[in-house]
Amino acid sequence: MKNLAEPTEEKLDAIIEAAQKRFGIYGAEKTSMREIANDLHLSKASLYYYFPDKENLYKAVIEKEQAEFLGTLQNDIDSMNDPAICLKRYAINRLSYFRKLVNLGRISPGSYADLKPLILETFLQFRSRELKMVTGIIEKGRKSGVFTAKDSSEAAVLFLDILRGLRSIALSDRKLMGISDKEFEELAGHISSAAEIFIKGLMYRKQNK
Amino acid sequence: MKNLAEPTEEKLDAIIEAAQKRFGIYGAEKTSMREIANDLHLSKASLYYYFPDKENLYKAVIEKEQAEFLGTLQNDIDSMNDPAICLKRYAINRLSYFRKLVNLGRISPGSYADLKPLILETFLQFRSRELKMVTGIIEKGRKSGVFTAKDSSEAAVLFLDILRGLRSIALSDRKLMGISDKEFEELAGHISSAAEIFIKGLMYRKQNK
Repeated sequence: MKNLAEPTEEKLDAIIEAAQKRFGIYGAEKTSMREIANDLHLSKASLYYYFPDKENLYKAVIEKEQAEFLGTLQNDIDSMNDPAICLKRYAINRLSYFRKLVNLGRISPGSYADLKPLILETFLQFRSRELKMVTGIIEKGRKSGVFTAKDSSEAAVLFLDILRGLRSIALSDRKLMGISDKEFEELAGHISSAAEIFIKGLMYRKQNK
Repeated sequence: MKNLAEPTEEKLDAIIEAAQKRFGIYGAEKTSMREIANDLHLSKASLYYYFPDKENLYKAVIEKEQAEFLGTLQNDIDSMNDPAICLKRYAINRLSYFRKLVNLGRISPGSYADLKPLILETFLQFRSRELKMVTGIIEKGRKSGVFTAKDSSEAAVLFLDILRGLRSIALSDRKLMGISDKEFEELAGHISSAAEIFIKGLMYRKQNK
């Protein structure tokens, strides 16, 4: 019981990191709580003190990855002035993140409705955060007169759904999981072109005809 | 054996139509070849003379529906001069067709990779036909100076993939099959807006800034 005596933030982080490694190599299904405890020289009881089950630990890993990705995106956005370039970079960064998640086995083709509620929740939370981020980019472009969108949030929803849709069909057309370099390049080209046309659409002015 | 004596085009059409009705009401899985034969007062042997199995009959039904839909689209395209309006109408017509297929149980969420090869073949054939159609619309707009796309076929692939992606995620977010009027209206609004921005993107000219 001595492990329980000292619950710390550091231990929490260490557990999440160890789980992230195991999940990354073997997948969440083939990883047991005992293995993660062993990796850290923790008792199983100690591990369960932090996380009641593997699902909650899995959720914590996903949330950590999401926070890291959103942080990277925010830095990228903050370092850039042109909202059109910013949106285009968002499309490609988002695809890189998707690729990482697919290759780690975090995402598989099939219905969102199949996800466990706890995991679905983190995905929905992530989506609302990225929506806020992209709305911010479009709003900035609208205020500076680059974009003509009446409703920045609506345009952001469309932009994100278009990207998500293109990723979704790329995944559904394939039998095997994992995205190779070649496939990634192809998909990135496709998504870049779509994003580019969409961004031009946001910049379109009628008098220009 | 007398039924086999007179294989005709009319009988073929009657079989496809009877199967279409049964598949529409009960779904392909819950329909037997015997039921279709009974509907037409045909012997089972007679029916098998025309179609070796249910899958081939199912394929014929899908191909009939596809041909009808493509015919309707072509008429719509031919009756219209403005390629921008034409593309936008395509997006909505395509969604109506999708709704019909979903409500008939012809499409379910999940991987294309799960489809039987025979059925996948008809979907791919359909896709290459609609690509040809949409390429034609964009090429017309390009020649008349409305669209700025360098490659009409590439732009058509993007346009169709965006529509398909938006349909795909709309389906994957839901547990139940079938699309209600309300859901259709929402999705149609969403797809219209996306198509509109994309079309403006095709019309965008740099000097307009």
